[in-house]
Amino acid sequence: MYTASQIKNVFQDYLLKEKFSAAPASLYDPANYILSLPAKRARPLLSLLAYQLFRDELDEALPAALAIEVFHNFTLVHDDIMDEAPTRRGQTTVHKKYDLNHAILSGDVMLLYAYQYLMQTSYQDKTALFQHFNQAAIEICEGQQMDMDFEKMLDVQIEDYIEMIRKKTAVLLGVSLRIGAMLGGATPEVAEKLYQFGTHFGISFQIQDDILDTYADPDKFGKQVGGDIIQGKKTYLFLKTRELLVGEERADFESAYYGDTSDKVDRVKQYFRDVNAKEYAVQVRDAYHDLAFSYLNSLNLDDLRLEPLLDYTKGFIKREM
Amino acid sequence: MYTASQIKNVFQDYLLKEKFSAAPASLYDPANYILSLPAKRARPLLSLLAYQLFRDELDEALPAALAIEVFHNFTLVHDDIMDEAPTRRGQTTVHKKYDLNHAILSGDVMLLYAYQYLMQTSYQDKTALFQHFNQAAIEICEGQQMDMDFEKMLDVQIEDYIEMIRKKTAVLLGVSLRIGAMLGGATPEVAEKLYQFGTHFGISFQIQDDILDTYADPDKFGKQVGGDIIQGKKTYLFLKTRELLVGEERADFESAYYGDTSDKVDRVKQYFRDVNAKEYAVQVRDAYHDLAFSYLNSLNLDDLRLEPLLDYTKGFIKREM
Repeated sequence: MYTASQIKNVFQDYLLKEKFSAAPASLYDPANYILSLPAKRARPLLSLLAYQLFRDELDEALPAALAIEVFHNFTLVHDDIMDEAPTRRGQTTVHKKYDLNHAILSGDVMLLYAYQYLMQTSYQDKTALFQHFNQAAIEICEGQQMDMDFEKMLDVQIEDYIEMIRKKTAVLLGVSLRIGAMLGGATPEVAEKLYQFGTHFGISFQIQDDILDTYADPDKFGKQVGGDIIQGKKTYLFLKTRELLVGEERADFESAYYGDTSDKVDRVKQYFRDVNAKEYAVQVRDAYHDLAFSYLNSLNLDDLRLEPLLDYTKGFIKREM
Repeated sequence: MYTASQIKNVFQDYLLKEKFSAAPASLYDPANYILSLPAKRARPLLSLLAYQLFRDELDEALPAALAIEVFHNFTLVHDDIMDEAPTRRGQTTVHKKYDLNHAILSGDVMLLYAYQYLMQTSYQDKTALFQHFNQAAIEICEGQQMDMDFEKMLDVQIEDYIEMIRKKTAVLLGVSLRIGAMLGGATPEVAEKLYQFGTHFGISFQIQDDILDTYADPDKFGKQVGGDIIQGKKTYLFLKTRELLVGEERADFESAYYGDTSDKVDRVKQYFRDVNAKEYAVQVRDAYHDLAFSYLNSLNLDDLRLEPLLDYTKGFIKREM
C-alpha cells in the first residue's frame, strides 16, 4: 500500500511516460503544455486511492486515472477560454500562449484521448464504466453553463448554486473515486457510496473555498484575500447574505457588492457579519463534510486500508483559518 | 429494404424525437439549432445503408447513426469558430447566433452525447465499436489541425494534402459505414472493406469538390465558381500546378494565386491549363473512386441488397461538369 504522496509520484511518472507524441505537433503541444504544469492531481489521486481500498497493484488503474486527469485538463483549457483567464497554475493559459483555435482543438482531442485511455482498462463491463464517466462529463458541461448563466442572473437561489457546484466540480471527484473503486473490484453499491463521498466532499470543499477567499489568513492564502468580493462573484456568502436581507437593505448590499468603492471589501464584510453569513457557510460546509464521511464510514473498511485516503482528504480541507 | 431517401425520412424522424430536452436550455438550444438546419445527413445515411446490406430492421442502428450525426455537427460548430465562418447551410453559424462560449460548450456536450448514443447500441463488443469511433474522431481533429497548419505553410506536398483530406473528411464516411456494417453483423474483414470503400470514396469526393469549385457549370453550382482561387485556398489543382512549375514560373503562379488582381481567376486557370492540372485531378479522383468501388465489389454482395447504397453513392458524385 502506498501513501498519497507516493501515489502521486507513480502517477506523475506515468503521465510523463504517456506524453502525447503523435503528429501534428501543433495539435499535441498545447495538450502536453497544460499537462506539464505543476498540479495537485487531486482527481487521479482520489481514483487511485479508491482503487487501493480494494487492490494493491496500481498499474491496472493508471490508464483510467490518466483519462480523468486528461479530461480535467480539457475542461480547464476550454473553461479558461470562456472565462478569458490569462493565467492558470501561475502560468500562461493555453489560448494566450498559443491561440484560440489551438486551445479549442487541443481541448477537443484531449477529451477524445480521455476515452481512449478509459478503453485501455481491462475492466470487464466497459459500458458501465463509460456510462458513469459520460454522465459525469455531461453534468460538468451543464455545471459550467449554469455558472456562466448565473453571472448574468440577478436572482440566483442557494439550492441552484449548490447544484451548480455539484455539477461543475463535485461530480468529477465523485466519479474519480467511483471508477477507482470499480476497477479495484468494488460492488456497484460500494462504488456508489464512494461516489457519494466524493460529491459531498466536493461541495464541502467548494464552500470552504468561498469562505477562505474572504476569511483566509493573508500570509497563508495563495491569492488575494477578498478577491471574490472585489470581482462581485456570486459565492455562497454573497447569496446567503442577499437571501437574508430584504427591501432597501438588500438593494444597498447588492450595489455595494457590484460597485467598486475603495472600501468595498470592508463594507461587504460588515453585511456578511450582520447576517452571520460566515457561520451559515461553515454550518453548510460541515454538513456536507460530515455527510461525505458518513458515506465513507458506512463501508466499514479496515482502518489500515482506509488510512491513505483519509490522510489525503483530511489534508485537503484545512479547517483552520 | 429501404431506399436512401426513405432511410433519410426515418432518420429525420428519429433525430426530431431525440431532440435535446435537458437543462440548462442555454447549453442545449445551440445544439438543437445546428441539428435542425436542413442537411444531407450523408454520414448517418451511409451508416444505415451499410447496416441494411446485412439486416433489415433499422431501429437497432439508429442510435449509432445519431451518434455519428451529432459528432459531425460538433465538428461543424467548432470548425466554424476556427474558420470564423459567418454562415453554415445558409444560416447563421452557432458562434454568431449565440456567442463563442455557447459554441464551445455546446460543441463539447454534443461530443459527449455522441458517446452516449453510441453506448445505447446493443452491440456486444462495445470496445471494438468505441475504438473505431474514437480513432476516427482523433484523426478528424488531426485533419482539422493539418488544414489550419497548411494555410500558413508555403510548401505543402500533395501526399500531405491527401492525408489531410483523408483525416479531416474521409475517415468519418469510412467509420460511418464500418459501424453500420458492424451493427448489421458483418465480420471485421467485411466491415474493414466498407471502411476502405468509405475513405477512398471520401477522398475522391473531396478532389471532385476541388474540381467543381473551379470548373462547375455556374448555373448548376450552389456557390460562386472560382471561390477557392479567389480565396487562395490550397486545393489539389493549386498544389499540382505548383508542383509542376519551376523557378520563376512557379513564383509568378504563386503571386497570381495569392494576389487579388481583377483577372485573377482567368490568369490562374490559364496556369492550370498549361500544366493540365484538371486532367491530373480527374485522374486521381477516378483512381480513388475506382479503388473505393473495388473494395465494395470485392464483398460479392447480392445486387439487390447493394442497390440502395450504390444508388446513393453514385448520386453523391456527379461526374458531369
